[in-house]
Amino acid sequence: MNFADRLIAACRDKHSTLVVGLDPRWSSLPPSLQSVALKANGPTAQAAALAFHLFGRAIIDAVADIAVAIKPQVAFYEQYGPWGMHTLLQTVEYAKKQGLLVIGDAKRGDIGSTATAYAQAYLGGQVSAEQPAFSLSVDALTVAAYLGSDGINPFLKSAEQTDSGIFVLVKTSNPSSGELQDQLLAGEPAEPLYARLARHVDRWGAGLVGESGYSSVGAVVGATYPKEAQRLRKLMPKSIFLVPGYGAQGGTAEDVLPTFNDDGLGAVVSSSRGIIFAYQQMPHYGPDHYADAARAAAIASRDDINRALRRAGK
Amino acid sequence: MNFADRLIAACRDKHSTLVVGLDPRWSSLPPSLQSVALKANGPTAQAAALAFHLFGRAIIDAVADIAVAIKPQVAFYEQYGPWGMHTLLQTVEYAKKQGLLVIGDAKRGDIGSTATAYAQAYLGGQVSAEQPAFSLSVDALTVAAYLGSDGINPFLKSAEQTDSGIFVLVKTSNPSSGELQDQLLAGEPAEPLYARLARHVDRWGAGLVGESGYSSVGAVVGATYPKEAQRLRKLMPKSIFLVPGYGAQGGTAEDVLPTFNDDGLGAVVSSSRGIIFAYQQMPHYGPDHYADAARAAAIASRDDINRALRRAGK
Repeated sequence: MNFADRLIAACRDKHSTLVVGLDPRWSSLPPSLQSVALKANGPTAQAAALAFHLFGRAIIDAVADIAVAIKPQVAFYEQYGPWGMHTLLQTVEYAKKQGLLVIGDAKRGDIGSTATAYAQAYLGGQVSAEQPAFSLSVDALTVAAYLGSDGINPFLKSAEQTDSGIFVLVKTSNPSSGELQDQLLAGEPAEPLYARLARHVDRWGAGLVGESGYSSVGAVVGATYPKEAQRLRKLMPKSIFLVPGYGAQGGTAEDVLPTFNDDGLGAVVSSSRGIIFAYQQMPHYGPDHYADAARAAAIASRDDINRALRRAGK
Repeated sequence: MNFADRLIAACRDKHSTLVVGLDPRWSSLPPSLQSVALKANGPTAQAAALAFHLFGRAIIDAVADIAVAIKPQVAFYEQYGPWGMHTLLQTVEYAKKQGLLVIGDAKRGDIGSTATAYAQAYLGGQVSAEQPAFSLSVDALTVAAYLGSDGINPFLKSAEQTDSGIFVLVKTSNPSSGELQDQLLAGEPAEPLYARLARHVDRWGAGLVGESGYSSVGAVVGATYPKEAQRLRKLMPKSIFLVPGYGAQGGTAEDVLPTFNDDGLGAVVSSSRGIIFAYQQMPHYGPDHYADAARAAAIASRDDINRALRRAGK
């Protein structure tokens, strides 16, 4: 089953559109977890990798039946070199075993021949049998499109080969995203850069539409820009939106509504800090029960979004 | 000494502006190297990592006195997971020991808090002493700017802390780079997106100008677009251009001239396949002498560019 169909099925089965962002930061980890890792390894990359491994497993166990996917932020693993990347590999494998889809948040983008290597690294499907091969084999990857179609095509090929998907950065959730993305283009129609890119995304995804009617080529559209999301929803009707910015970054359940189609589908909403470090906002759990706090926050977020969808008749 | 000054000094000392792109591809490696690695490890990621390690060392030894920097393309290492990243680490360390600057070609870009993790991963300088820390510690990193200033600021902080630098993707060398980069923006002045971004780059680099008069915030500008390069040279007078696309991608020594300032400085020219796999174009060397062929190709490229600069009176 292609990626879009698998993601839509997960949304229906779990009655959820929640994605849990796995952004492990050493300084936000519960002190007891830091201690265990430091005792074993001292203040090294190995210590962080061990702590991230334990932390990731506990979060995955806590949210596996609540969220449709986890979204490991590759930067936090890459920050600890080969040791961090090894933990990322273990974490991806464990999440898949627990019934979660995995969206690698890596925002990779390069010229064609290099993008092929990234597509292989994350999605697979590029290397002939007799060659040495490896792939993290996530279900989908976030990608950057500043280089145009050349850099996207290898990901489309991988997506087709391995039933995986991509989410193209279109309108990001951060405060300065408008510096380039909102720039108004001359011509007919006059439209911002993000809208022009959305037309490309719609085109790139046309060959990967599944039985659900959705394409495995999705788009990253921040919850912090609901007006822009409304416009983008029309420009990419078949793309699933991956929506960061809900929760700790300031986006509300009302803000994410425009990213959904009228069928109540077509978007998945990602929350990171607000869930995985919920223990910091819920002192009654205590830091050693960070996984329970994460589960409670995940349930609350899922229900918050579902209620808003119901209120909006979606 | 800041990165720009170190790079300019290397250009003067070596009378060279050549950067050797280290893009190891398994299928292009000399057969004897493939055999050694496969015998030791079978067709695994470890085999590729071992072969890349041996290949990288040989190339570095061959070009250390000819090139000012090597530019490992991170994707080709990342393609082999933690094992590939370990080889990348060894390769970076070895290149620095041999007197080469190292430009990590990773094209990373994300929102601020995540960009901080990438900045630490590649440039360092973000983590307090008592925390677990790691950094690849390259001299400079290529970065993507679609997310705007938020995503660039952490790299500027690292650059200042560790005397390193960045090259922002402005006008890339690939055929489809115009799909977004060349789009004409409305307003005053009406200009393409790449020109608008160039103004940001000039601004981001203002605080990191060294004694050479150049900034540690450079720009990636493809040799395949000499007209655009001419325009960009004026918009970013203090940025050093990292110029891919010379050689195998079709750019000539004449094409790279507009990326230089009149002082014959301000640009470094990168060639990858045309140097590291030169043995395929020079059958008289034989595949086992791939390093000698790479050295010959590096010398020829360096001299080709120097001659063109001399002819142009730069």
